[in-house]
Amino acid sequence: MNTDINYKETLEEIYHTVKSEKNLGEIANYIPELAKTDPDNFGIYFSSIANEEYGIGDWETKFSIQSISKVLSLSMAYHLIGDKIWERVGVEPSGNAFNSLVQLEADKGIPRNPFINGGAIVICDFLISHLKKPKEEFLHYIKELSGCEDISYSESIAKSEWSVGYRNIALCNFIKSFGNIENDPDEVLDFYFNMCSIQMNCSDLTKTFTFLKDSTFTNSSGHRVLTTSQVKRINAIMQTCGFYDESGEFSFKVGLPGKSGVGGGIVAIFPEKYCITVWSPKLNEKGNSYRGMKFLEAFTTKTKLSIF
Amino acid sequence: MNTDINYKETLEEIYHTVKSEKNLGEIANYIPELAKTDPDNFGIYFSSIANEEYGIGDWETKFSIQSISKVLSLSMAYHLIGDKIWERVGVEPSGNAFNSLVQLEADKGIPRNPFINGGAIVICDFLISHLKKPKEEFLHYIKELSGCEDISYSESIAKSEWSVGYRNIALCNFIKSFGNIENDPDEVLDFYFNMCSIQMNCSDLTKTFTFLKDSTFTNSSGHRVLTTSQVKRINAIMQTCGFYDESGEFSFKVGLPGKSGVGGGIVAIFPEKYCITVWSPKLNEKGNSYRGMKFLEAFTTKTKLSIF
Amino acid sequence: MNTDINYKETLEEIYHTVKSEKNLGEIANYIPELAKTDPDNFGIYFSSIANEEYGIGDWETKFSIQSISKVLSLSMAYHLIGDKIWERVGVEPSGNAFNSLVQLEADKGIPRNPFINGGAIVICDFLISHLKKPKEEFLHYIKELSGCEDISYSESIAKSEWSVGYRNIALCNFIKSFGNIENDPDEVLDFYFNMCSIQMNCSDLTKTFTFLKDSTFTNSSGHRVLTTSQVKRINAIMQTCGFYDESGEFSFKVGLPGKSGVGGGIVAIFPEKYCITVWSPKLNEKGNSYRGMKFLEAFTTKTKLSIF
Amino acid sequence: MNTDINYKETLEEIYHTVKSEKNLGEIANYIPELAKTDPDNFGIYFSSIANEEYGIGDWETKFSIQSISKVLSLSMAYHLIGDKIWERVGVEPSGNAFNSLVQLEADKGIPRNPFINGGAIVICDFLISHLKKPKEEFLHYIKELSGCEDISYSESIAKSEWSVGYRNIALCNFIKSFGNIENDPDEVLDFYFNMCSIQMNCSDLTKTFTFLKDSTFTNSSGHRVLTTSQVKRINAIMQTCGFYDESGEFSFKVGLPGKSGVGGGIVAIFPEKYCITVWSPKLNEKGNSYRGMKFLEAFTTKTKLSIF
Repeated sequence: MNTDINYKETLEEIYHTVKSEKNLGEIANYIPELAKTDPDNFGIYFSSIANEEYGIGDWETKFSIQSISKVLSLSMAYHLIGDKIWERVGVEPSGNAFNSLVQLEADKGIPRNPFINGGAIVICDFLISHLKKPKEEFLHYIKELSGCEDISYSESIAKSEWSVGYRNIALCNFIKSFGNIENDPDEVLDFYFNMCSIQMNCSDLTKTFTFLKDSTFTNSSGHRVLTTSQVKRINAIMQTCGFYDESGEFSFKVGLPGKSGVGGGIVAIFPEKYCITVWSPKLNEKGNSYRGMKFLEAFTTKTKLSIF
Repeated sequence: MNTDINYKETLEEIYHTVKSEKNLGEIANYIPELAKTDPDNFGIYFSSIANEEYGIGDWETKFSIQSISKVLSLSMAYHLIGDKIWERVGVEPSGNAFNSLVQLEADKGIPRNPFINGGAIVICDFLISHLKKPKEEFLHYIKELSGCEDISYSESIAKSEWSVGYRNIALCNFIKSFGNIENDPDEVLDFYFNMCSIQMNCSDLTKTFTFLKDSTFTNSSGHRVLTTSQVKRINAIMQTCGFYDESGEFSFKVGLPGKSGVGGGIVAIFPEKYCITVWSPKLNEKGNSYRGMKFLEAFTTKTKLSIF
Repeated sequence: MNTDINYKETLEEIYHTVKSEKNLGEIANYIPELAKTDPDNFGIYFSSIANEEYGIGDWETKFSIQSISKVLSLSMAYHLIGDKIWERVGVEPSGNAFNSLVQLEADKGIPRNPFINGGAIVICDFLISHLKKPKEEFLHYIKELSGCEDISYSESIAKSEWSVGYRNIALCNFIKSFGNIENDPDEVLDFYFNMCSIQMNCSDLTKTFTFLKDSTFTNSSGHRVLTTSQVKRINAIMQTCGFYDESGEFSFKVGLPGKSGVGGGIVAIFPEKYCITVWSPKLNEKGNSYRGMKFLEAFTTKTKLSIF
Repeated sequence: MNTDINYKETLEEIYHTVKSEKNLGEIANYIPELAKTDPDNFGIYFSSIANEEYGIGDWETKFSIQSISKVLSLSMAYHLIGDKIWERVGVEPSGNAFNSLVQLEADKGIPRNPFINGGAIVICDFLISHLKKPKEEFLHYIKELSGCEDISYSESIAKSEWSVGYRNIALCNFIKSFGNIENDPDEVLDFYFNMCSIQMNCSDLTKTFTFLKDSTFTNSSGHRVLTTSQVKRINAIMQTCGFYDESGEFSFKVGLPGKSGVGGGIVAIFPEKYCITVWSPKLNEKGNSYRGMKFLEAFTTKTKLSIF
């Protein structure tokens, strides 16, 4: 393992190489509001265990974190409720697209893992049952994790998702038909769409995910967020399920636990080494950031800092 | 990461704890010959990056390595043929049982990964096309990896598998019907059943898999077996696909790349730290060694030596 | 073919035989309102091509026609829109349960046939797009078919279905996500749940379905309802798809085109011979009336009046 | 129902119309031997209940009956074994392609109906268990049905099917893996491929299927072949499952029980009215004879002689 890497130089070099190459893929356009983003945005924020921090490119621009939020809702629910959550959601990779209903039918309404849409919806249902003001408390939780105050839901994106979210409405009602949703589907979906609409920049995200990197597992105020075992589990699920049906490919090429969102963000973690966020809105066919994947593959290959 | 662990003491302590608990699960009885094994066998062999080596219990008893052999055939094919193998077999977890045909139909005969039976059969087909004497050369390859001469096919187990291997015969012919098998199905299956019948003990296996642990990636003669990138990939696939539809669970509980077989063996690797083989024939519902899983979960929890 | 059957005697004899036997199965209890029906209701209404009409048992009691209504909405849409409806709904048996979402995913939102729930929902969407006052006009259509004025929606049943209809809400939104629903899902579902709630008795139903029996294909006012070819097609779809995943069994045992509903009603037609409605609320495992199936099997066996 | 039709004139008129139109579709070319047939062959043989018989075009040319043979093996097994056959094969339409393995996995090795390949293979297994010389006795059975002596297996076609029959080999071994095949898969497949290779002409086939048309249900020697109830059942299964995943379409357009084969033959029956065989080798996308479907649709439309 390479320990005397000049991170700053390496990050900048790869950034410029990837930026000089053609920016392929398509921006997520099924959510009207997302389609408005500038496709050439490209930002990175890196933080090592020794608290070396580097931002490159558009790292200060806020974007829609989308599915990356699923790791945060899972962490909050895991802390509040503990291992009982695994009675209603699995930990196996799904082998199917993120919004597939096929497996759910075979599995009688128990989603395969908390990162496919169905599983994330069940986690939202848990939070709604346990929190008094779910949306306020969830946002507060993220602010505590990151130490950043300037984080908010995007009302226009949440509304935009509602307006075209027929597949998610179908998923939530389908799971409810199996008895695996406790609350009113409309309330659960409202939380879900809002959660996905959260706006953060690369720096916010890297700071937020620091609790998964550092073995103190604390938030910005120094409070313990999860137990050692819980962190290990969340990292393991990110490793096997974090990239939809490209999780194997990501594991194979990048070799880090991570989570992507259709807003073009990817957060990846090397436990006890570093946490990094890459953002570039154009997506490959599987729905993961084209440049994000390229950047991370080059980074772990060059630094030899993958977990494998 | 804990670096001053007394491995020997920890291994022995966990071994005795697990041994003192009830030995649950069922021995694999669908292959008549396998059903003859003594269900209370329990062996471990550990090797650290610093070449500390420890064997405990029945580590010298040979057993049928079964699906663990799939990592070895994949390594050999990957070395011989390179990335072209990924045109005919995927790298994604399957989300289905190891011998499911459903996904194959949807995927037009391209198995999801090289560790489900269909994928392993395609890898066998590659080897048959590339080797003059496939069975001899494959055995020679394993002997070179391990430095052990006393490794052989079990004719009686191979025959026993043929006699009940209707599902695998179905798989091979099904893939052939999509054009993804080049050779005669009977020849491919003969290689496959023999490969699964290989007899090794815990020590042999740990020594064989050393090339995945150590960044020199060499076999017992000091020859390079795979490139750095290839090793990273094989470890990644073991992480996401090594335990059938319990891969997420293993990743979640143990947090290491590894591979299990229905003979009750499990090999697990912490890159640049250690390689370990556990063997105990009784299997849990998902087909993985009951005691093997318990042992490894306790070991990585206690030592905090998981990749997450 | 037996032409000098004494229908009245035969009907009564079978009625008494079936009534004397144990009334097995379960009343549909997933819709709270339906569960209130007396399970021992048992009514029959028969009408021959020569207008011999016989009612037996509880033939005057109104019940919820449920899925039987799907034939009527299909007939109305087929008349209004013609063969264009087959661009958005298929004519093949589904081989799956009536409310399965699996096939829909593979078929990209085109339901297999108009009698599974998804297909019926698409037909409702057609009617909403083509009618000014869909609910009023549909009820009027049925009154015209039957010549009965005393037919109505059941507000309490429609409401009861809405309250537990998560699977249907999922289906409708899922199809909408593929672009195969034009209107607002809530509006479509409101029409669908109301349509299923219609209350009719055995006599009303037999009179309503007369247009499928008689080659003049006219309603009670003597107006042509469908073309010869359209009638042939609707009868064919009832034959292959009228009984959920027991369609083959019904075809096999009874040998008539027909349609059942979870309210316990079954309408069956022998083109140019007779039309018959049987009602008994207890359902077999497949969701078809237990006594209804028994009665019709005995009737076509005894009279040798099946189409095969 | 039209009873004073001039069958001869109608048949000839439609024959000439269809022949004058473009002959679309593709000959079955996955079986090398079948691909040698002249694609413009077009023959018809009709037989009414009053024994009016008419042959048109290439009605005397022998062709490979392929799946049409499945009705004959089913009839023979049904007669020999009775309703016990339904414990190992279903009667529901499959909603999937004829050689799909997906459903079999969900249904634990019980094929949906006797006309999909898996179901026909189970029926072959029944016959092998019950007959001393299966191939000889089955051929004898057909000769008795038809009264024609000049009927034989085609060794070259059977061999040709074996050489490319990987999907069927897969199916048979897959069902065996569930325990639903008693005999050696190779023996079962040999019978199956031979059965499909039988060569008959339109006249032979029409005469063979006469037992399903006429309520005496006798073969050419006047011996009873099946009971009334058994005939009703076979006709019902042909109606719902006779045309692969185009069964609904056939039922919808033609409205008769029938069975097609990839050799381009179709036999259709109007119980107590007539039996007709049409042969033309070019197949539509679903694997049914293009001209055969066109001819029968025109014939039942024109004569109004469909069962609906």
